[in-house]
Amino acid sequence: MAYEDLKINGERLNETLQRTCTSWGALDAPSTGMCRLTLSQEDKETRDWLVMECKSLGCDVKIDEMGNIFATRPGTAKDRNSIGMGSHLDTQPAGGRYDGILGVQAALEVLRTLHENDITTHCPITLIDWTNEEGARFPGAMMASGVWSTKSSTGLDACWSLRDKDGVAMKNALEQIKYLGSTKCDYRENPLECHFELHIEQGPILEREGKSVGVVTSIQGMKWFAIRVTGVEGHSGTTPMPDRSDALVTASRLISTVRDVALETGLGVATVGVIKSDTSSQATIPAGVDFNIDIRCSNNDMVDQLAKSIFGAFDRVITEESNGTSYAVQRTWGLPESTFHPHCIESVRKAARKSVSEDQIMDTIISRAGHDSGWTSRVCPTSMIFVPSREGISHNPNEYTSPEHCALGAQVLLDSVLYYDEKVREGKY
Amino acid sequence: MAYEDLKINGERLNETLQRTCTSWGALDAPSTGMCRLTLSQEDKETRDWLVMECKSLGCDVKIDEMGNIFATRPGTAKDRNSIGMGSHLDTQPAGGRYDGILGVQAALEVLRTLHENDITTHCPITLIDWTNEEGARFPGAMMASGVWSTKSSTGLDACWSLRDKDGVAMKNALEQIKYLGSTKCDYRENPLECHFELHIEQGPILEREGKSVGVVTSIQGMKWFAIRVTGVEGHSGTTPMPDRSDALVTASRLISTVRDVALETGLGVATVGVIKSDTSSQATIPAGVDFNIDIRCSNNDMVDQLAKSIFGAFDRVITEESNGTSYAVQRTWGLPESTFHPHCIESVRKAARKSVSEDQIMDTIISRAGHDSGWTSRVCPTSMIFVPSREGISHNPNEYTSPEHCALGAQVLLDSVLYYDEKVREGKY
Repeated sequence: MAYEDLKINGERLNETLQRTCTSWGALDAPSTGMCRLTLSQEDKETRDWLVMECKSLGCDVKIDEMGNIFATRPGTAKDRNSIGMGSHLDTQPAGGRYDGILGVQAALEVLRTLHENDITTHCPITLIDWTNEEGARFPGAMMASGVWSTKSSTGLDACWSLRDKDGVAMKNALEQIKYLGSTKCDYRENPLECHFELHIEQGPILEREGKSVGVVTSIQGMKWFAIRVTGVEGHSGTTPMPDRSDALVTASRLISTVRDVALETGLGVATVGVIKSDTSSQATIPAGVDFNIDIRCSNNDMVDQLAKSIFGAFDRVITEESNGTSYAVQRTWGLPESTFHPHCIESVRKAARKSVSEDQIMDTIISRAGHDSGWTSRVCPTSMIFVPSREGISHNPNEYTSPEHCALGAQVLLDSVLYYDEKVREGKY
Repeated sequence: MAYEDLKINGERLNETLQRTCTSWGALDAPSTGMCRLTLSQEDKETRDWLVMECKSLGCDVKIDEMGNIFATRPGTAKDRNSIGMGSHLDTQPAGGRYDGILGVQAALEVLRTLHENDITTHCPITLIDWTNEEGARFPGAMMASGVWSTKSSTGLDACWSLRDKDGVAMKNALEQIKYLGSTKCDYRENPLECHFELHIEQGPILEREGKSVGVVTSIQGMKWFAIRVTGVEGHSGTTPMPDRSDALVTASRLISTVRDVALETGLGVATVGVIKSDTSSQATIPAGVDFNIDIRCSNNDMVDQLAKSIFGAFDRVITEESNGTSYAVQRTWGLPESTFHPHCIESVRKAARKSVSEDQIMDTIISRAGHDSGWTSRVCPTSMIFVPSREGISHNPNEYTSPEHCALGAQVLLDSVLYYDEKVREGKY
């Protein structure tokens, strides 16, 4: 069968996705939410199933030192690396069935389609399940693709020694579920030709614009900051209002300022999700409050501009109404924007046009969330395919993408891989 | 010796206070802070020592069902109850050496003074150590005096079944340190004639006004509220700023409003110390945030007025900039103002004038903190004596009251008790 006639089986894809979600990590019905934390028993069972499925399709399966699964269907070329199709099977503690999971299930559907049609590709084709994309059990999102890329500041040993809230070290968690592999977690020793990732948008843009598929050209840059506000502890009954240096009041004024500045400047998004007061006593004026700011913009310059505007506004709040409190900023994490590769972007654009009309395609969309593709793009050509998220909801049990859009995404993934493979065969990529 | 010539031994009082604090519950030097949580090993050893000291002074010691210690020096009257001198030996996790401890140590010094001068009083005189005044280990301040008064909504069984953060039930904790007594914890079965309490002010007023002693005429009223702000969970990267229903941004605006309204109205104090975001993920817009408001004013009408003003301002915030969030209020706890008894207030005023000049006395001061005397005042005549707190600091290792003020407080406590006793002997009280 010619490449251009190959069709993935949408029904099979959706049935497999829903069935495996129901089996491993589903929240109680009627919720369709998921809790499949990385390296949990639910994650292990999903992984075991995935490995068996891939082996049944004739794939060679390698597990690396971070538990990443590489399932490879051979090609004919001896001198080219695999075309990767990666995403993740882990979820947030109250996440949905599509974030990450769709990308891996669609990659499996691609392998199934190639297998049942007896297709021989030029490059090997590899499905990848990246470990701990969510960072929900062991802190640090996109962790294992970061190690593989060698570009993350959190290397293998640092990741291995991270502990979950029960004190289990990540290395022990890998051993316990038998996914501490011997393959080096390093792109130089276990390379890819390129990396494609199908993912739900997790935002409202495709739906709002009436598009079915988005060609992702970059991931926005992001920086995280830890803020510590310091005041003076006091008794809630005996300290007169004018005498207070209340750290939580100042923190509150700063947190509203984060939103106000992000809205006013229009440079990007800025969020405070986590806050911690020094006191657990209702009768105490807290001496200190910690909170974190997550800033994301299309590129790093804009991130820096927005951060500067926010901290400038913080200084004005402190000058005008600190009441003796102060604040300190610590830069905790960041990842500059990820620029995807023209060859991969072209492959996705061509593939999308095969399946839907021009007006259904958003030709350029910037990913507002981080993805494993952010790390892979630093060491091999990469791009992503987005399908719509209902109401833009994600990291939430109500996350939803229609079966039609899931199937469309998988078809575009197949065609992107085949287009890229053809170009390699022709010596053009 | 005549009543009017009796002098407490200030040196002995201060030496005993410092020595027992150093022995049982001191934080590491150079801090002079204390961690003597109720019913802990440190508390047990302090209690054991106190019981032995009181017995050596010829006192009869009773322990009640809440572990309250009643050490009674007999009087001659057969038809009158004891004049009580109560406070507490437990502290906050990072508290000081004076809050509560001074009141019990001064009561001991009163007993020592009566004993060494071989004084025979008309009424029996009882030192009381009230259990778990702080509510720092088992939640609920002034807990055991509340049970004794029978006026608290948290009765004996409810208190017994409270658990600390390690899951130890309060009844077990009482048993473990052998302070689960058989005396009924009920003022009707174990009554007091009246209750005096020497305490540090825990606020800045006496020091600021240059006074050495305050005659406490009431304890302000207080109400606690639990606020739940509800928004919509979202991804910090993918949710555009205008589309957000961010519960933490709204909670922040409400928390600054609490301070602003309390300052503007001047009705009393309002504090938010505890806050909890639904998410522990830095990359999540929280769906909900919980926080608590502590409101205290001179009387309950003012508490209600201030609460009404705060929630009115909340409604304006929600109308103007809720962005789809909402809030709900739950009343969690409250104690109307405690009005002290004219006989006890008169006793303290007369006693203060014996020791210091008129300009050193604040003749009327309202306690801004809650005390065991708040509960005793509901079932027997009560008042309190305040001595200054340096810089108003309390619930903090830097809490400090000078040895001279500690001694003065103990002398006023002695003279208050003797004045009251004399009035009872004369048939006037």
